[in-house]
Amino acid sequence: MDLSGFNITIVGLGLIGGSFAKALRKLNPKHLWAIDKDLATLKKAEEAKVIDFSGLETTYMLSESNLIIMALYPEDTIKFIEKNMAHFRSGSIITDICGLKANIITRINEILRSDLEFVGGHPMAGKELAGFANADESIFENANYLLTPTNYNKKETLEFIENLIVAIGCKKPILISAEEHDRIIAYTSHLPHLIAVSLINCSTTEKNLKSLVGGSFKDATRVAALNSTLWLELIKTNKENVIDIIDCFIADLLDLKVAIMNDDDKKLLQAFKSASNRRKELE
Amino acid sequence: MDLSGFNITIVGLGLIGGSFAKALRKLNPKHLWAIDKDLATLKKAEEAKVIDFSGLETTYMLSESNLIIMALYPEDTIKFIEKNMAHFRSGSIITDICGLKANIITRINEILRSDLEFVGGHPMAGKELAGFANADESIFENANYLLTPTNYNKKETLEFIENLIVAIGCKKPILISAEEHDRIIAYTSHLPHLIAVSLINCSTTEKNLKSLVGGSFKDATRVAALNSTLWLELIKTNKENVIDIIDCFIADLLDLKVAIMNDDDKKLLQAFKSASNRRKELE
Repeated sequence: MDLSGFNITIVGLGLIGGSFAKALRKLNPKHLWAIDKDLATLKKAEEAKVIDFSGLETTYMLSESNLIIMALYPEDTIKFIEKNMAHFRSGSIITDICGLKANIITRINEILRSDLEFVGGHPMAGKELAGFANADESIFENANYLLTPTNYNKKETLEFIENLIVAIGCKKPILISAEEHDRIIAYTSHLPHLIAVSLINCSTTEKNLKSLVGGSFKDATRVAALNSTLWLELIKTNKENVIDIIDCFIADLLDLKVAIMNDDDKKLLQAFKSASNRRKELE
Repeated sequence: MDLSGFNITIVGLGLIGGSFAKALRKLNPKHLWAIDKDLATLKKAEEAKVIDFSGLETTYMLSESNLIIMALYPEDTIKFIEKNMAHFRSGSIITDICGLKANIITRINEILRSDLEFVGGHPMAGKELAGFANADESIFENANYLLTPTNYNKKETLEFIENLIVAIGCKKPILISAEEHDRIIAYTSHLPHLIAVSLINCSTTEKNLKSLVGGSFKDATRVAALNSTLWLELIKTNKENVIDIIDCFIADLLDLKVAIMNDDDKKLLQAFKSASNRRKELE
């Protein structure tokens, strides 16, 4: 992908923003800049040649960038765009990486200048360790990526973003509506996180848990080591979908419990086999 | 560990039995034999020099072995020991690898000859792929191992088994009662499996799930690709403990749901932070 005519600014040089920077560096954009409240991180990224000169003014970078990648928390993303609305270069594309889309897209499209374009995105990539120090372009390798276009998005803008996503190593992105995205994410991401939290919290009598668990427990609870502040924001913003899917899941687990109580082997085997087949389809 | 005077027979050359064979081979026992209903597997293991001559009679191997490792399903383990009770060498030690202990230990000690000794064991090791073809001694590397001794076990027998477990790469085993083991396993193994089954079964409307999930969903459902027949046996045998812990888990998840409904940030943050801390202690 030829980015030699493109200036790109990444806002937020944490795990995802930093990984974006490392991946984009390899594609040789004209300039690759970053904005972060932590000046030491910016300096480190510049010294590692991951980004270009780190001493530029925010207003300058925004006014010279063709593409801005917002890699902040949802509320901070909206605040940054609102505060800097006057500075974006005319015709530039802004995309984000937030794990929820309906709220952010509605609010940004309400305030966005008509000569700018916002494309909502959600890379299904990450790891437990946060910050630029853990940034690694390999997190995008073969990762799923969801895009949530609106009627405001031009066909060629979407194609450009899709090509960029594939160029950094992800699978071809899936395009869905923001509302569908948030409903699905309640199931595939928010529910597994809440389950992990409840699973690890629900029995506190084992004093030496570390010596008593195998891989299944570790896998099932891996995401319980979450960033509490971010997750509070995500769950609250997606409240209705999350409550619906918790109810579905509990109903299903209670069905299993009743089958166990009633020695209903047929029902249990059916559930186990269906789960096993569905899980194999994910690989 | 010096096993040069020891004949060892492994009964069941599947994933765990085969991995035991590969690990024990490196410790150079006098003879390492195996019993399996699949003669082709035995031949393959002999050709790979994992076990010694595979054409011996079961009665001969049992009458010459100092240690017998039972690597079958629970019911098959009991049946094999009962059927072959007359053939075991006097003074030999029998150990098993079953994921539940109270039932098997009670039933075996009821029928065991007084010149034999049974030590219940549970390696917290495995992977999703079954069979000798996937056997790999590295599954024991740093794995937890639970032993459930009874009053019938001699101190020197337990020390021998403990040393053997450490010699194949596991951590020093934890000694607990069979009842405590089964209660803990309901929490650390059976509950995560049932959760994975319900999680993957509870929403069947997504047609393209594979393209919509990230690592958290894959991790949380990894064990859903389970061996249905084995798991039916495990869950049914541990019925009371499993039902108790499902109730605890659902109560905890419902607490989270209520906190989400009520925008109780304080309670949610508390749960997230407690889960995060507990999870970090497992690493």
